[in-house]
Amino acid sequence: MSEFDLIKRYFTRDTPGALLGVGDDAALLQPSAGRVLAVSSDMLVCGTHFYADADPYLLGHKTLAVNLSDLAAMGAVPRWATLAIAMPGADEVWLERFSAGFFALAGAHGVELVGGDTTRGPLNLCVTIFGEVQAAQALRRGGAQADDEIWVSGEPGNAALALAHLQGRVVLPEDDFAVCAPALYQPQPRVALGLALLGLASSAIDVSDGLLGDLGHILAASGVGAAVDYAAIPVSDTLRRYPQLEKQCVLSGGDDYELCFTVPASRHDAVLRISEQLGLPLTRIGRIVAGHGCCIYDAAGNPINPESGGYDHFR
Amino acid sequence: MSEFDLIKRYFTRDTPGALLGVGDDAALLQPSAGRVLAVSSDMLVCGTHFYADADPYLLGHKTLAVNLSDLAAMGAVPRWATLAIAMPGADEVWLERFSAGFFALAGAHGVELVGGDTTRGPLNLCVTIFGEVQAAQALRRGGAQADDEIWVSGEPGNAALALAHLQGRVVLPEDDFAVCAPALYQPQPRVALGLALLGLASSAIDVSDGLLGDLGHILAASGVGAAVDYAAIPVSDTLRRYPQLEKQCVLSGGDDYELCFTVPASRHDAVLRISEQLGLPLTRIGRIVAGHGCCIYDAAGNPINPESGGYDHFR
Repeated sequence: MSEFDLIKRYFTRDTPGALLGVGDDAALLQPSAGRVLAVSSDMLVCGTHFYADADPYLLGHKTLAVNLSDLAAMGAVPRWATLAIAMPGADEVWLERFSAGFFALAGAHGVELVGGDTTRGPLNLCVTIFGEVQAAQALRRGGAQADDEIWVSGEPGNAALALAHLQGRVVLPEDDFAVCAPALYQPQPRVALGLALLGLASSAIDVSDGLLGDLGHILAASGVGAAVDYAAIPVSDTLRRYPQLEKQCVLSGGDDYELCFTVPASRHDAVLRISEQLGLPLTRIGRIVAGHGCCIYDAAGNPINPESGGYDHFR
Repeated sequence: MSEFDLIKRYFTRDTPGALLGVGDDAALLQPSAGRVLAVSSDMLVCGTHFYADADPYLLGHKTLAVNLSDLAAMGAVPRWATLAIAMPGADEVWLERFSAGFFALAGAHGVELVGGDTTRGPLNLCVTIFGEVQAAQALRRGGAQADDEIWVSGEPGNAALALAHLQGRVVLPEDDFAVCAPALYQPQPRVALGLALLGLASSAIDVSDGLLGDLGHILAASGVGAAVDYAAIPVSDTLRRYPQLEKQCVLSGGDDYELCFTVPASRHDAVLRISEQLGLPLTRIGRIVAGHGCCIYDAAGNPINPESGGYDHFR
């Protein structure tokens, strides 16, 4: 199978929303009137982000999901993506499953694959994703203000617990792993939540590197601090059974791809309504304060020192 | 050095042409009025596209150049790029030089780096580039018509000769290698040529995989054939000294990043004027014919059978 046959067979689908899709030197894209393009690139590397024996269907899903999560955090409507793949060889069984997982999620979010690259090399997956948003409405990191409430979606920490099991730092019974694994293998990008937060949230970020680290990016960009009530953070029943890992997974575990966002306290009830509409747990976990840095308090009001910040590839 | 310090130090520059650049979940980009975005992604992999000891300054240049070349082939004005890097560790000397080479070429073409990703892994460089073009004017592969002239820029084959030397398939004296090496290490994307061809060329492609293979993409997309006069193809004096490699380098050698394009025969003189204005050799090498496939003829009018098609990562 040639490189071009491979692209045609596995990575060429109709792109009615693009002026020009796969098959020329570049794709041609036009955002809707009054919208600008939101653009993000993420790279997943075998041995760093996933294991070589990762289920290719789930990997295809996750490769796109982590990028959709960035659009969710901007409140952008997903439109298009490019996909560059380096791989050791053209394994057709793998490609069939990978592309099926990729396109299943793409279809669910209306994303068209408009270009990319395929090359030989250690397995590496790089997606650039394109969404559209009204520029003035986009959810940025820098808009949090003192007294805003801090919210998080879902139950952060499950993906980190599943990873701890894979890394041998804990041994989970099959039932517990089954509960956590979907967060790691098949994260659900919170695109609908990001769109619902337009005009409501003062800032937003996706939790890819860990709740504290990512909240820290909001604080730094906004020039504010935060007080987080650890007891308020929703923790899954499964993760609660591993107290030795719980705080680390909740505060510093990445890969859940939930959203962390801030809203003015006056809009508290509007957030609860969104939670109900989307059927997605949204929980207030603290508030923005003047100053800088993030203090975390336990149920008794005593400060907690987290063991580490967010995930960092080079620290 | 943390991942975020690294991004800040080496990959964050002003982006006055973007609504939002590096540092949020996504960049926000708006093409100029009446223009659409031309988007392309290319991935360069250590061991496949370059050697581990490649000069990082030149590698930074080439990483962007191969992407600019795709915009050139569309006739698009370069605007922005994202850069995703996987690397084994944070080597500051390497990063300093790599980013210097990248930004030197970016500055020369008005490209702003608006986002990307940095992660640990085998060295891999993935750029997505964004240009803008009037949709109806963009140079596509599918517009060639019978009797159009086929042109090529520069002297294709030099990069392939330099690569043959590095691979030990030929031993070049230092002077000869010095002549060819810039084509391989520091290709000059033909952006100005692509822009000059707007409204003139009926099709265009950049020669990244080899002249015949890439011309073949034009023929397939346009539903036509070609008759190429081998003797007309400009070959460097250096490459002529290696007759055992010449045809292979000229016809099937990739990596020169010249443009191959077609124009109606009535516009022949307009192409010559562009050549003069740009100080860039442009040479008519054949013509489009009805039918399909590409026939190459030697000076006596006898057909030449090239040894292979273009470069293919998986054949």
